[in-house]
Amino acid sequence: MPRYRIDIEYDGAAYAGWQRQADQPSVQGAIEKAIAGFCAEEVSLRGAGRTDAGVHALGQVAHFDLGKDWPADTVRDATNAHLAMAGETVSILSAMSVPDDFDARFSAIARHYRYLIVNRRAPLALDRGKAWQIARALDAAAMHDAGQRLVGRHDFTTFRSIHCQAKSPEKTLDRLDVTRDGERIEIRASARSFLHNQVRSMVGTLKRVGEGAWTADDVEAALEARDRKACGPVAPPGGLCLMQVDYRY
Amino acid sequence: MPRYRIDIEYDGAAYAGWQRQADQPSVQGAIEKAIAGFCAEEVSLRGAGRTDAGVHALGQVAHFDLGKDWPADTVRDATNAHLAMAGETVSILSAMSVPDDFDARFSAIARHYRYLIVNRRAPLALDRGKAWQIARALDAAAMHDAGQRLVGRHDFTTFRSIHCQAKSPEKTLDRLDVTRDGERIEIRASARSFLHNQVRSMVGTLKRVGEGAWTADDVEAALEARDRKACGPVAPPGGLCLMQVDYRY
Repeated sequence: MPRYRIDIEYDGAAYAGWQRQADQPSVQGAIEKAIAGFCAEEVSLRGAGRTDAGVHALGQVAHFDLGKDWPADTVRDATNAHLAMAGETVSILSAMSVPDDFDARFSAIARHYRYLIVNRRAPLALDRGKAWQIARALDAAAMHDAGQRLVGRHDFTTFRSIHCQAKSPEKTLDRLDVTRDGERIEIRASARSFLHNQVRSMVGTLKRVGEGAWTADDVEAALEARDRKACGPVAPPGGLCLMQVDYRY
Repeated sequence: MPRYRIDIEYDGAAYAGWQRQADQPSVQGAIEKAIAGFCAEEVSLRGAGRTDAGVHALGQVAHFDLGKDWPADTVRDATNAHLAMAGETVSILSAMSVPDDFDARFSAIARHYRYLIVNRRAPLALDRGKAWQIARALDAAAMHDAGQRLVGRHDFTTFRSIHCQAKSPEKTLDRLDVTRDGERIEIRASARSFLHNQVRSMVGTLKRVGEGAWTADDVEAALEARDRKACGPVAPPGGLCLMQVDYRY
């Protein structure tokens, strides 16, 4: 059966998350329905990242198999046409034929997330639902420094949702960079894979550092506690965006 | 009477434009209502740019007078609180006390607009309503070169809506820069003031150049025709954003 890789952009605000659910709108469900709409095949998508409700993507990747061999550009355009008809805020950026052993989830060697904070007193208008507005002045350099304590291979139990289904809480965090450009603070996190809510949990904890409530040592102590209760607040979903997924080929 | 200057951000999608209208939502009306909500005074705002329906702002400026002297930060925060309660996509970035002779519209010495094109085949998801998606590959360098024919003092009748109320079609365009960053093409236009629909009319005309349908000479001929019918298509409003307004003080 021909296998396709699709790269996907979406505004997560209208969805209960990536994963298909029986009674709520999901990104996966919207795309599966659009594919069925153009080729009348029931497919099951596998996505690289199971993003939560309200989380966005500029570079989600998924794969699926079709019974019939369609040109990849037709798959992209026809799926987009059906997504548009259904009013979905999901767009297929590209589609390509891939070998049978390509797996969007298991072949991924790195996932890159960006978390956006707008650090100002005024509420968001143009970026509403796409950033975390924080009125109190944050020290982005202190957040970056504290973030480096989390880089490397660790037991991330503290930064893991109690609903996380991963077998092991051990992960290798390759990068956690905090940069400021005017009122915008970007946090870029990269790893082969993340635990459920890991990025948003780390961001909420770094926010405490930015406010001056916690030091880098406090962050390290929270990590070493391996205790969910030691975590800062979980940052709201709208600030998070899955930027890119890397594969070996 | 104390006079206030406010700087405003808004998502224009939900509004029939800046200007107050009897039967449709407007940005001006939303802010006037929010001000009345916190101080029970009926005010009349004057804005620097009367943006059209669907046009956004990151740096709109307006002024108004109050009977009572409120701290400027209270004006900002209380107006924002009432805007939020009403579910408006409008945010007061700052408020400050200004002299009686400050006029947001007539004291302005420069207005800066940005128009955003996303040049790709896939429809927009995350930037929907905030950019013009154009599938056909555009030559941004050719657009920039042609745009320079419009810079300077000209009769812009070709690029002026038939509804424009300005007394003279003569304006001085200070800057019209077209730059590309990946699939994003930004057009930055600056002038002391613009005619109604002037930026969107110029963008639509430059799009013809980007597609290869028109040359820079065709743009110059259109300008010299001083005829609305010589204009290219008017670019859609969602790509346009009022970025900044300059004042002498």
